[in-house]
Amino acid sequence: MREVEVKALLVDPMNNGPVLLLKDNQTEKVVPVWIGQPEATAIAMQLQHKEFPRPLTHDLLRTFLKVMNGELDMVVIDSIQDTTYYATLFVRDKEGQVHEIDARPSDSIAMALRTGSPIYVADEVFEASAIDLPDTTEEGVVTNPAERKKFEDFVKDQMHISDFKRFI
Amino acid sequence: MREVEVKALLVDPMNNGPVLLLKDNQTEKVVPVWIGQPEATAIAMQLQHKEFPRPLTHDLLRTFLKVMNGELDMVVIDSIQDTTYYATLFVRDKEGQVHEIDARPSDSIAMALRTGSPIYVADEVFEASAIDLPDTTEEGVVTNPAERKKFEDFVKDQMHISDFKRFI
Repeated sequence: MREVEVKALLVDPMNNGPVLLLKDNQTEKVVPVWIGQPEATAIAMQLQHKEFPRPLTHDLLRTFLKVMNGELDMVVIDSIQDTTYYATLFVRDKEGQVHEIDARPSDSIAMALRTGSPIYVADEVFEASAIDLPDTTEEGVVTNPAERKKFEDFVKDQMHISDFKRFI
Repeated sequence: MREVEVKALLVDPMNNGPVLLLKDNQTEKVVPVWIGQPEATAIAMQLQHKEFPRPLTHDLLRTFLKVMNGELDMVVIDSIQDTTYYATLFVRDKEGQVHEIDARPSDSIAMALRTGSPIYVADEVFEASAIDLPDTTEEGVVTNPAERKKFEDFVKDQMHISDFKRFI
């Protein structure tokens, strides 16, 4: 299991499909995770330290946890089946009991960013899905030709890396 | 304060803006509440008793509440400022203490439908915003000309009632 951080939140302009790049702290590799638009918004707002005038759904989740005296110990992206990642939230109640809650990585990360909780990726998931971090310009376009080819091969028909834009 | 139920979830095809009609149990009036697309999806899934293969954000909220032994006593839409409605979730923790949590009506209703909790609208909100329930066909189109005119006047430029479709 290794700790990761949110390195970038990019969007494929062809289908507006947001993708998170989760960077390993020990290597230069990243795990790409495709997520939904609402969760991307929730993550982008937090990364930018912005707030909507009204609480978003993940803000409400954080408030629930707070009023119930719970804590989010950590988030673990623990398996991948086909192209779907699975995550577990480790939630500690006020008596200290830890509950493992099945969740999507997008919701898990939106929460972890709000509570300052660490994000981990299981070794087998990392090994199955991590790619070399593409060199990106400020606009998020991959510039190293060899890396770009490799990244393009990886994403195949799923997105158009030449059109990549930095989402946030 | 009066209890309401979700009478319909409609969408304006001009801007894909979903609107909830909350019906008073005592009269034929409804309170229209414009909501976001993700929350509309969360509400539609619950009204249709459907489940995504993976938990949606509001399913995660329900699970949080469950593992923390909390209960959602009720939801109250308690004020309207300009065109924004404000709601409060009354959450009871395992010691019986009730916490009032500020939330959007859309999140509140998506939660109430999942926990079977009652939804209330404050009298002053009801009086300020309730309209006669438009006659609708199965497709959700208003058919009574007088009511249609009244409803069209109400919604003004916000949506095109003649194009109304039932969202669910």
